[in-house]
Amino acid sequence: MDMHTLTRELQVKNKSKIVLLVADGLGGLPLVPGGKTELETAKSPNLDALAALGVQGLSIPVKPGISPGSGPGHLGLFGYDPLRYQIGRGALEATGIGFPLQAGDVAIRCNFCTLDAKGNIADRRAGRISSQESAPLAISLRQVSIPGIEVFVEPVKEHRFVVVFRGQGLGQAVKDTDPQITGVPPLDPIAEDKASQKTAQIAQLFLRQAREILKDHPKANFHTMRGFASRPNLPSFAEIYGLRAAAIAVYPMYKGLASLAGMEVVGQTATLDDQIRTLTGVWNDYDFFFIHFKYTDSTGEDGNFNEKVRKIEELDAAIPAIQSLKPDVFIVTGDHSTPSYLKSHSWHPVPTLLVSDCCRPDPHTAFNETTAITGGLGQFEAQYLMLLALSNAGRLGKFGA
Amino acid sequence: MDMHTLTRELQVKNKSKIVLLVADGLGGLPLVPGGKTELETAKSPNLDALAALGVQGLSIPVKPGISPGSGPGHLGLFGYDPLRYQIGRGALEATGIGFPLQAGDVAIRCNFCTLDAKGNIADRRAGRISSQESAPLAISLRQVSIPGIEVFVEPVKEHRFVVVFRGQGLGQAVKDTDPQITGVPPLDPIAEDKASQKTAQIAQLFLRQAREILKDHPKANFHTMRGFASRPNLPSFAEIYGLRAAAIAVYPMYKGLASLAGMEVVGQTATLDDQIRTLTGVWNDYDFFFIHFKYTDSTGEDGNFNEKVRKIEELDAAIPAIQSLKPDVFIVTGDHSTPSYLKSHSWHPVPTLLVSDCCRPDPHTAFNETTAITGGLGQFEAQYLMLLALSNAGRLGKFGA
Repeated sequence: MDMHTLTRELQVKNKSKIVLLVADGLGGLPLVPGGKTELETAKSPNLDALAALGVQGLSIPVKPGISPGSGPGHLGLFGYDPLRYQIGRGALEATGIGFPLQAGDVAIRCNFCTLDAKGNIADRRAGRISSQESAPLAISLRQVSIPGIEVFVEPVKEHRFVVVFRGQGLGQAVKDTDPQITGVPPLDPIAEDKASQKTAQIAQLFLRQAREILKDHPKANFHTMRGFASRPNLPSFAEIYGLRAAAIAVYPMYKGLASLAGMEVVGQTATLDDQIRTLTGVWNDYDFFFIHFKYTDSTGEDGNFNEKVRKIEELDAAIPAIQSLKPDVFIVTGDHSTPSYLKSHSWHPVPTLLVSDCCRPDPHTAFNETTAITGGLGQFEAQYLMLLALSNAGRLGKFGA
Repeated sequence: MDMHTLTRELQVKNKSKIVLLVADGLGGLPLVPGGKTELETAKSPNLDALAALGVQGLSIPVKPGISPGSGPGHLGLFGYDPLRYQIGRGALEATGIGFPLQAGDVAIRCNFCTLDAKGNIADRRAGRISSQESAPLAISLRQVSIPGIEVFVEPVKEHRFVVVFRGQGLGQAVKDTDPQITGVPPLDPIAEDKASQKTAQIAQLFLRQAREILKDHPKANFHTMRGFASRPNLPSFAEIYGLRAAAIAVYPMYKGLASLAGMEVVGQTATLDDQIRTLTGVWNDYDFFFIHFKYTDSTGEDGNFNEKVRKIEELDAAIPAIQSLKPDVFIVTGDHSTPSYLKSHSWHPVPTLLVSDCCRPDPHTAFNETTAITGGLGQFEAQYLMLLALSNAGRLGKFGA
């Protein structure tokens, strides 16, 4: 049974406030055997004080051993089974640059490429053309015109750009045109089902016009199309949880993911201080607040252990300001681990802390990967965290009589 | 894969005895930050001694964050996935008063109501009419006669009673006739599928005769019908586990739930002492014994922390008598938590203790919410407890060669 069927039935409305503070890539690893993780190394007196009041545990983002991208990592935290709700590459790319995808749109991740005189692909990434050079080229593709269809073209970075088709009856099941090898021509966009035939035809028309527009460019004289994808059909926080939800994030990707879940993106923020100010400003207008802190992930991906420690300490310093608003439920977690040691997202379960007046505290007075092992929340799949948030907020009724 | 498919294949018969002692609503919460729970406060030397011999952990009744009613709470403990096997309100109500529902019966929860001169509902609960006044009224409805159908009418409490139809071809998908508001007439019973059309027609006939019988009563001059439900089709303990199972409970609800699972309800008991005497008396006749202790839940629901502590101590005092029978597997658990602090069933996982000669004991020498966090059973969904009971009793063979 779908958990959303349950929460639709059991949801209760009240005045409680829930804060979900996501430190991206929070979990880490020691650099040497017997060493400490980033979170264990950081001086985090405020998180430790929170741990003394709350209950902690380890959140498994998807399944044991699975390292998630930002998409599934956040979908899990938001209570969507990340194996069921998958965001196609095109839709994730569009979401990542903040493009407001609508239901029925089809988004496509495109790469500029170099064709040789015979029309075969000589370079699948157009010599990793610079963003400076590629952005005006992508914008030049906005002259493409297809009757009855709105076409959007958005530059991304280097050889990447996004195309979105908006119109009636556009399926998403169209094969990539990138043959994945050089020395052969790009493939045609082929529909994989009947509902996607119109999309494939439109893609064909787009490619034909793009070939004309780009033909004289020395490197980027054509492009491929990959990951045709519609906006994923996520039931909204309002519908499944009865929550008016706000998202306070700095980066477009996380704003986009939150808006796919029906959260309202609030504030124009560049720093954690901005985010806290925004939180305070909109406190009375929402029930649920998703706050995204990026830098525990980016420092981990850089392999910069000390800088990740510093970013955790920066996050720790913001805790009292959030606490001073007296949320009924305060959760600190991450969407996945990003150990500096691995310089990448990882599968390790994520230390997660929940504080409420009825959370059944465990004996811990610190918060890190080691204490979380013996925390009262145990190890649980991230997709169940929202159930715990709701029940601790008194927002879930009894199941069955 | 359904766990029952597994246990049907792997079950082994032997002479072992399994005792499942369910302290209803066992788990609790501290009243103040840093305080102790009811179970941590109680002096329970016998449970502690059992803990030293056994292995403990935390049972999640349904899913993290879900607070179950008695129905799903017990179904989980009995090994039925509570999200798959749901008991409709009518069937639970009939079960709760000890009515022996048969396969194919349709049970309906009814409320006396007051109609005004125009036939609109003026009071959905007939002024919360007393049981004394309503019971004879319910019994008067036994004169209703419907050709080819056996009709049962059983008083419950105040404005509530239960109607059961017994006959061929009765589906359960019929809409409630209670409009949930006053100032409008009751709704007609409408079939939601073809298989339930006959049930709807019979309900219509019942209501027509009931209207005549009740019409002159000043308050309860009609009634509504809600939660049409068949007996849930639970495979029996004998079939899925190969167990001859006995249920020793004081309250009708728990006798009813056990009988739905094919247990035999034994003894007429009013106290825990009666229950232990009954257990001793039937010890040679069964393989599995479900003993239900209600008062850890009812004191929790009353918000009476000290009384819940006392009830736990009372339960503790009964442990040696059970142990003296030398069960091969002895399990102490609850169907859910009922913290006095919340005065209601809750989602918190339930301390669970299992003792057998092969249970792999953990180092704990006490038994409560905190020790259970680091117990050898970890955190597990209640529906897997019966698998552990069977394996510890030597009643489950190897899966696969």
